[in-house]
Amino acid sequence: MELLKERILKDGVAVSDNILKVDSFLNHQIDGNLMLEVGKEFKKRFENEKITKILTIEASGIAVAIMTALQFDVPMVFAKKKKPSTITGNVLTSKVYSFTKDTYYDICLSKEFLDKNDNVLIVDDFLANGHASLGLADLVKEAGAQLAGIGVVIEKGFQEGRSKILEKGIRLESLAIVESLETNKINLK
Amino acid sequence: MELLKERILKDGVAVSDNILKVDSFLNHQIDGNLMLEVGKEFKKRFENEKITKILTIEASGIAVAIMTALQFDVPMVFAKKKKPSTITGNVLTSKVYSFTKDTYYDICLSKEFLDKNDNVLIVDDFLANGHASLGLADLVKEAGAQLAGIGVVIEKGFQEGRSKILEKGIRLESLAIVESLETNKINLK
Repeated sequence: MELLKERILKDGVAVSDNILKVDSFLNHQIDGNLMLEVGKEFKKRFENEKITKILTIEASGIAVAIMTALQFDVPMVFAKKKKPSTITGNVLTSKVYSFTKDTYYDICLSKEFLDKNDNVLIVDDFLANGHASLGLADLVKEAGAQLAGIGVVIEKGFQEGRSKILEKGIRLESLAIVESLETNKINLK
Repeated sequence: MELLKERILKDGVAVSDNILKVDSFLNHQIDGNLMLEVGKEFKKRFENEKITKILTIEASGIAVAIMTALQFDVPMVFAKKKKPSTITGNVLTSKVYSFTKDTYYDICLSKEFLDKNDNVLIVDDFLANGHASLGLADLVKEAGAQLAGIGVVIEKGFQEGRSKILEKGIRLESLAIVESLETNKINLK
């Protein structure tokens, strides 16, 4: 997606060999027009799938997911990072490893919002090691729903997320792939 | 906003005299088309203000904020509930009292994304005791920015949020006001 790639090169900052800072347009301050185009691009890539629900995880996946949901004209639902008191009844849960914090955290989703009749598109702002995406895929499986694929805005191509997702036979669409961040330079595929 | 009121009456659940469950369309599963209309309504109500930024707090404010930002054609920014390692540099911070958890938590926002040239519209999914909204208003003040007002999707009219906000001379626009939830019945103003 050219518009996105241009934006990454213009406003992204390679903080280290590992960390790409895009918080001026993607995950702290967010550009609504760019998110709208991201939603349209996911629609284009998955238009042959009969998607019934967009799934993401709080917090920075939400803007991506709501714009994608709008394009598909289906609801979006976001997994929460722990069980809040307002979720009543049965919940789907999974454990996700946080690489940055070196701990596991729980993610959960009310069973009301995902079931065997759903064909789900998972979307997220970033793909690095794939832990969050695969945790979401676990929720889809637990619900007995179909998983149409995973769409990410920015993939860190030098980390193992892609291979882990493809290993499980899941379709992956990344709108921009960062090949390296060495010497503070952003190299896109 | 009639569309919203109809949806609250159709899909909302009065769990107790205090708790309105709207997680099927507003804060867990989210309806993108409804959020688009919410964004348009905030644009209409604040169209005479020269808004430069939409501010909210993670997580359930994000869908509301990104749709509102799209209508105003300005960026949105969301405050985080603690300082994550990816926020570098100076941050604006405030403390917010959580009524449900009876504890205080920190909210923060990178100084990069709010400054004295901004005229800010704060939006959120819910207004109850007003703690979150007023915490966001503190961040605006700390940044030296102007606050145009606060827009909330659902106000619990029987709690003290409105009076606290108006006391501070801040304009408040609520798209639906719940007058009571007694005997499991949702009464809207």
